[in-house]
Amino acid sequence: MTPHGEIKTPAFVTVGTKGTVKALTPEHVATLGAQVTLANTYHLYLQPGDELVRDAGGLHKFMNWQGPLMTDSGGFQVFSLGTAYGKGIGKILKTYDPQLLLAESNDPDKPKLASIDNDGVSFKSHIDGSMHYITPEKSMEIQHNLGADIIFAFDECTSPLDSNYYQREALGRTHRWAERSLAYHKGKENSERQALFGIVQGGRSEDLRKESADFLAKMDFDGYGIGGSFEKADMTTAILWSNEILPESKPRHLLGIGEPEDLFMGVENGVDLFDCVAPTRMARNGGLYTETGKINITNAEFVHDFNPIDSSCDCYTCTHYTRSYISHLFKAKEMLAATLCSIHNLRFIISLVDKMREAIHHDTFFELKEKFLKTYNKKSALAAPQ
Amino acid sequence: MTPHGEIKTPAFVTVGTKGTVKALTPEHVATLGAQVTLANTYHLYLQPGDELVRDAGGLHKFMNWQGPLMTDSGGFQVFSLGTAYGKGIGKILKTYDPQLLLAESNDPDKPKLASIDNDGVSFKSHIDGSMHYITPEKSMEIQHNLGADIIFAFDECTSPLDSNYYQREALGRTHRWAERSLAYHKGKENSERQALFGIVQGGRSEDLRKESADFLAKMDFDGYGIGGSFEKADMTTAILWSNEILPESKPRHLLGIGEPEDLFMGVENGVDLFDCVAPTRMARNGGLYTETGKINITNAEFVHDFNPIDSSCDCYTCTHYTRSYISHLFKAKEMLAATLCSIHNLRFIISLVDKMREAIHHDTFFELKEKFLKTYNKKSALAAPQ
Repeated sequence: MTPHGEIKTPAFVTVGTKGTVKALTPEHVATLGAQVTLANTYHLYLQPGDELVRDAGGLHKFMNWQGPLMTDSGGFQVFSLGTAYGKGIGKILKTYDPQLLLAESNDPDKPKLASIDNDGVSFKSHIDGSMHYITPEKSMEIQHNLGADIIFAFDECTSPLDSNYYQREALGRTHRWAERSLAYHKGKENSERQALFGIVQGGRSEDLRKESADFLAKMDFDGYGIGGSFEKADMTTAILWSNEILPESKPRHLLGIGEPEDLFMGVENGVDLFDCVAPTRMARNGGLYTETGKINITNAEFVHDFNPIDSSCDCYTCTHYTRSYISHLFKAKEMLAATLCSIHNLRFIISLVDKMREAIHHDTFFELKEKFLKTYNKKSALAAPQ
Repeated sequence: MTPHGEIKTPAFVTVGTKGTVKALTPEHVATLGAQVTLANTYHLYLQPGDELVRDAGGLHKFMNWQGPLMTDSGGFQVFSLGTAYGKGIGKILKTYDPQLLLAESNDPDKPKLASIDNDGVSFKSHIDGSMHYITPEKSMEIQHNLGADIIFAFDECTSPLDSNYYQREALGRTHRWAERSLAYHKGKENSERQALFGIVQGGRSEDLRKESADFLAKMDFDGYGIGGSFEKADMTTAILWSNEILPESKPRHLLGIGEPEDLFMGVENGVDLFDCVAPTRMARNGGLYTETGKINITNAEFVHDFNPIDSSCDCYTCTHYTRSYISHLFKAKEMLAATLCSIHNLRFIISLVDKMREAIHHDTFFELKEKFLKTYNKKSALAAPQ
């Protein structure tokens, strides 16, 4: 329950990085069955500025989203600008080669845009090159100004590349920053209408993950995020170790993850909330989910295909348009292509999570998982680029 | 009355060049009060191809537009690729300097992509460089395949730069092509569900305009287009000369024109239908209509402006968003900027034409015109780029 409505879990959270779910109106998003939207603290802080959003009456009013709203901590963006900058490390590491990553990490031609000390993070704006310094208190202040229903404690996200020594040091910072975020938040009247989630870190280490979950579980957070940059194989254990310890009574949000197979794995291991840019980012490049796997609608085979993207889908796009028309829109570089494909992909994912919720209720989750993945993985060789 | 609904005139026709009104869903367009949409024959012929659209069940079904639909003749695009290519000559000539234009016209570095003979037009595709030849019969065949409710006879649009000799020669072609278009159309069963409009040409010459109107008025067309590339000063007389002769009982469409002041002038001189890309093209660049003139929302003065674009406007954008938010969307390069601004500009124009229709009914058209233009022209110095 939030001041802007209830969230039924498990739930997929749509991402509206800069205060808009790309290519969609908020009414489109609501019609898809989306319950929550997440905007990025880092992006809104730099542009248009959290104080402007506060003056506009808060983010709900500014972006015309009446439902529950989250903002992240900014920690992941700091990671993207620091350790991960220019190395193609995102939420999921695709080919894990420590030697290669280590070599790149020492490459002086790939400077970091951010540097971390025990008090906070200094970074250079990717927009205008201006310098900024964010502490846990500053992250809270920004998120108070933005005014989302759920906000996150400031954290440090580490890379699978980082040494054990560094992972432990960083986790210590994340925990001290969690304490400082919570203390600042509790001291303000915003704490009455904004829920604060702590973020579990600890990389791929069982010890650190459990230590982190244990440390944060004892604190008065309203819910928890599970953070990190993963290899696919690491993700399950990291979630499992965290959720074994985190209190079941509080929502657990797997940050930045949301491919169909990950959603099943996460729900199976106790995750309540997911967010991910993949459905909309893929959509803008023509990558579409179907029951039988991903397709890329820009392929020649779809030019004369007068079927919907997925004949079992109930979305606006599938009930009104053909693959042929969408293929035409991409060739013609029309913006409607991005809109129609984002609608489909988000509805596909939201509807899948709806089915999981229903299946949990009827105790048929594993049947659903088996049935879905069997059909879905048929076309895995045709996987669309993300 | 068309097979897809009635059109109350005067009406502004929204433009969906490639089978989509840019940045909007058809539902957005319908909600704006748009009665008719016009798609471009030339563009759809090249991509995705008129035969594909026919196989998809026609353009209404392909693009999911349930209301009345028009396709133009392709004549204006031929003009853009031929005489006008690379010279910045559009529907309205801004600075008329015959010497300069003549010099450019003879510049061998600015080759034409189209050439005209008495039988039709050969041109090179701007997409893939392939060669094509369109005759009046071919234009009809394409428009039959597309299947719009209102289609146009193939014509030749001339430039203010062309000599009197050439204007007369071109007008002769337009008239022979009108006869051939009509003959081909009447011989097909499509003539029962597609209305055919003839296009009056004749440039800035009173003799030619009247000759053209007279020639076409005697033919069995369902309505008329008034074509040409104009100087602002020429437009009124060209319309007046045409409409003095064209039958009042048939709709008259001023092709490609639709700025507020032109709409008043056109309606005053008997025009029933207008279409224009300006409202949506301007919108995508941040140029917005307001009661007190055009503004450009990307200007710094709007960053902290928490008012709607136009406080008297009833559109979705003005009732849900501030100038500040839209300014942010442009800076953040978010697609929603184009969507929200297109919604506003189209609603502004459609609502203005609605008011004109109402005012004609109450015999208060001139009061409306005077009142509107007095306020609207206040900010003319701030006119946004088109």
